[in-house]
Amino acid sequence: MSVVLLAHGGGGRLMADLIREVFLPRLESPELARADDSALFTPPPGRLAFTTDAFVVDPILFPGGDIGRLAVCGTVNDLAAGGAVPLYLSAAFVIEEGLPLEVLSTIVDSLAATAREAGVRVVAGDTKVVPHGKADQLFITTAGVGCVPEGVSVSGHHARPGDVVLCSGALGDHGMAIMVARENLGFVGHLESDVAPLNDLTAALHSLGPDLHVLRDPTRGGAAAALNEIAAQSGVAIQLHEEAVPIHAPVRVACELLGTDPLTVANEGKMLAVVAPEAADAALAAWRDHPLGREAAVIGEVLEGPAGRVQVRTAFGTTRILDRPLGEQLPRIC
Amino acid sequence: MSVVLLAHGGGGRLMADLIREVFLPRLESPELARADDSALFTPPPGRLAFTTDAFVVDPILFPGGDIGRLAVCGTVNDLAAGGAVPLYLSAAFVIEEGLPLEVLSTIVDSLAATAREAGVRVVAGDTKVVPHGKADQLFITTAGVGCVPEGVSVSGHHARPGDVVLCSGALGDHGMAIMVARENLGFVGHLESDVAPLNDLTAALHSLGPDLHVLRDPTRGGAAAALNEIAAQSGVAIQLHEEAVPIHAPVRVACELLGTDPLTVANEGKMLAVVAPEAADAALAAWRDHPLGREAAVIGEVLEGPAGRVQVRTAFGTTRILDRPLGEQLPRIC
Repeated sequence: MSVVLLAHGGGGRLMADLIREVFLPRLESPELARADDSALFTPPPGRLAFTTDAFVVDPILFPGGDIGRLAVCGTVNDLAAGGAVPLYLSAAFVIEEGLPLEVLSTIVDSLAATAREAGVRVVAGDTKVVPHGKADQLFITTAGVGCVPEGVSVSGHHARPGDVVLCSGALGDHGMAIMVARENLGFVGHLESDVAPLNDLTAALHSLGPDLHVLRDPTRGGAAAALNEIAAQSGVAIQLHEEAVPIHAPVRVACELLGTDPLTVANEGKMLAVVAPEAADAALAAWRDHPLGREAAVIGEVLEGPAGRVQVRTAFGTTRILDRPLGEQLPRIC
Repeated sequence: MSVVLLAHGGGGRLMADLIREVFLPRLESPELARADDSALFTPPPGRLAFTTDAFVVDPILFPGGDIGRLAVCGTVNDLAAGGAVPLYLSAAFVIEEGLPLEVLSTIVDSLAATAREAGVRVVAGDTKVVPHGKADQLFITTAGVGCVPEGVSVSGHHARPGDVVLCSGALGDHGMAIMVARENLGFVGHLESDVAPLNDLTAALHSLGPDLHVLRDPTRGGAAAALNEIAAQSGVAIQLHEEAVPIHAPVRVACELLGTDPLTVANEGKMLAVVAPEAADAALAAWRDHPLGREAAVIGEVLEGPAGRVQVRTAFGTTRILDRPLGEQLPRIC
């Protein structure tokens, strides 16, 4: 058998075979291997973070990553943005009948490798198969549990006037890599998704303690959506310095071709931070010391108001309002 | 706007509107309303259980339930089968473009009502929209976290020879209700899914302490799959008494028509328990006292071996082997 059949999702012997042959050897998880209905663990005392994300990216294999790596990073990064140290993941697969087992195996390999890279373990899973034409190859939904270290308290509600906005690196790589792959725009240059687990990068800021106010990963809707959310949640304005925002040249070209603002393009390996002004230098240094933060930059600051507004100060000294995008400019980006 | 658009999944203003208008008012969750990347909570000290399930049931509205109620019950029941008291859920929606907003709202209403019924709170969520034809109306993946009370230790590995097997009620209702709805077999009689949260029912057995060995909800693959898993995990044999297994008459008729063994049909509101023989009477009484366990019965016992075998003793005194089904007899049952 070389493709996934409906019968692989039926709770019978074929499903047990699929789990034993494809999932268990790759995920190396004693909890999964026990095959009970729930995974059990004893977390460290204190606050836990819990989050979920569904992934429907098209194509499922793309330059720089695949849906398996994305599914781990998306949830790990949401936990990291909650100030948490990710501990455990679940992964639920909805598979379209006919998916080659080789493709599924490649993706589970990648998911497993990314979980190891992030230092988390996949302890719970599920597999469903739907008939051909009732899904598009593969959707993966992950959920994650992490622990929040004592002294760390980040939230989109914590931005204060005077705070400094940092970005961990160049924006727009993920979304534009997907679009270039999907639309055959290779002539703009080589573009790769930035998809990466950011929990180690965010942990590098935990020592800032109460000076670390907000962490947010700018995924769907890009930095524009993330910063508008923070401005609204905290009742502040945010001003970006356009020329300070790192953007790789091929992303700039692809965005111009497609008429897209790179600030609205999804990232899967970048983090935004809002920190007290006295902590900005330390935060920037900590990120630039990290392999995933070498291009980190201070990109803006928090203003009193108008509450909820994000504006961009251009190189010419003018300002424009940066609204969150209305809807889906780049469908199925994650 | 009366249907879900691709733009509702784009991370922009329309997605924010959908979340604010459809999800937040129904789910009444302070954690969701905070709109941070992760939900934070402080669990009680001790062991936690964590699990996930994807739901792709067809049709999404069926006699006795819908995909929203199913998505809560599936994960709550997996936590309950882990011996846990369910605390928090996540819910991730993959929506096919064009789904009527009224249908989505009905399902979120049902999901929210079922979460209240089960005493759990939905604290994290995600919404993705895929183009028409790339999914089938709606898939929901839930994950859940629960706490395991001191003294409760259940696992498929804990069945011992001499133990007694209980079932909390009649088998096959969910799977046959779906099939009858899908195949227009209404003439067999009125059939409703048993989909229900079973955490209160399982908690009624927690006082058995170490005499409570295994809990398992017989979903996909039915009791046949669940009992075969337990027999394999524990290295024991299990013998069922066919005439002791409660099965409603219309289920029996529908199974005969479709050539299906009711023991292989999915349930979403039934629990199996394996208990020490001295605790069997107390367990049965506790379940029969519960509104969801009125038809509870002792249906079999655990034997030394052959390890991994499940057999059924018929009313005529003969025995037959009950294997787990090979694959998908009833696709998209959950």
